[in-house]
Amino acid sequence: MPRAMCNISTSNLEVRLSGSGGQGLISAGVLLGEAIGIGDGKNVVQAQSYGPEARGGATRCDVLISDSEIYYPECTKYDILLCLTQMAYERYSGSVKSDGTIVIDDEIEAFGDKPVVSAPFIASARDKLGAVIVANIIALGFIAEYTNVVTKKSIKSAVEKRFEGTRHLNLNLEALDYGIKLAKKQRKAEDENKT
Amino acid sequence: MPRAMCNISTSNLEVRLSGSGGQGLISAGVLLGEAIGIGDGKNVVQAQSYGPEARGGATRCDVLISDSEIYYPECTKYDILLCLTQMAYERYSGSVKSDGTIVIDDEIEAFGDKPVVSAPFIASARDKLGAVIVANIIALGFIAEYTNVVTKKSIKSAVEKRFEGTRHLNLNLEALDYGIKLAKKQRKAEDENKT
Repeated sequence: MPRAMCNISTSNLEVRLSGSGGQGLISAGVLLGEAIGIGDGKNVVQAQSYGPEARGGATRCDVLISDSEIYYPECTKYDILLCLTQMAYERYSGSVKSDGTIVIDDEIEAFGDKPVVSAPFIASARDKLGAVIVANIIALGFIAEYTNVVTKKSIKSAVEKRFEGTRHLNLNLEALDYGIKLAKKQRKAEDENKT
Repeated sequence: MPRAMCNISTSNLEVRLSGSGGQGLISAGVLLGEAIGIGDGKNVVQAQSYGPEARGGATRCDVLISDSEIYYPECTKYDILLCLTQMAYERYSGSVKSDGTIVIDDEIEAFGDKPVVSAPFIASARDKLGAVIVANIIALGFIAEYTNVVTKKSIKSAVEKRFEGTRHLNLNLEALDYGIKLAKKQRKAEDENKT
């Protein structure tokens, strides 16, 4: 199968975070872009577009990582897709590479052939941490641990820098840790299934 | 003079916010993108890249507005450029269209043929509002009033949405108003010079 024409470099890696407005996905994308670009020292373009889709309540936010110059044509196939709503899943799951990873909130009903990894981002934020708004940060922790697209050191440092001096710092660090824990649990379950 | 090849639509408008890390320019770009995209209902891509430049302490953040599909090749010439540091001015002022607008902090020393508009963003934030961190929001208010790239209603609503429920809401709304006031003062001075 030929690579999509927008993959200029073989080491491109393309991440989309999607869901609805108010879920903090753009903040999450900015944090991820900073962590990978400044913390991990890679070339990153972090972008979001606001068009008719965004005005319908869908939010999406992209982080493109490369070892060479990056263009941002919106025709990419994603290596990693996060979906926090059913609508985002339905809209974007077709745009993931055949060997890509789809990470979804476990309240989403997945369909189709592409395998998904699910975890309770929203329920954990609400029930374990008492703040549904940190579902985005839990998802970031999960993605860091599960995919290694960003180092845990850099994502933690980006979160610290963003929230330092605010009363939300501890909550967000807890959320990040909780996401990492969920991903470890997921990996363990996968390993047990293999054996 | 031929238009740069990256201007796909004649109604493209390209804005770059630049300065150093920690000045809140990415937050400002996200707010501007939301205000124009969701508030004003236009197609917007808001993007930042993290490469060797960003790691050298320079921050830049782009907001591209179009009435048609937007590509994001980093070869654009800007219609509006904001610079909050000397380094950002030196690096990006060459990338402004001949009829573009360069808005700089008044502590920056401008050179060259291209006219600039300057205002005390950083000094006002520090001395009038007691919080240097809101220089970005003062600059947003200035840009809204001076260039009309975004409606004042939409940028105010984006700021409100972002800071609602936090103790920073009033400070940021004051900063936005202060920037609008500075731009009105600037326009008045320009009009007086003309007559």
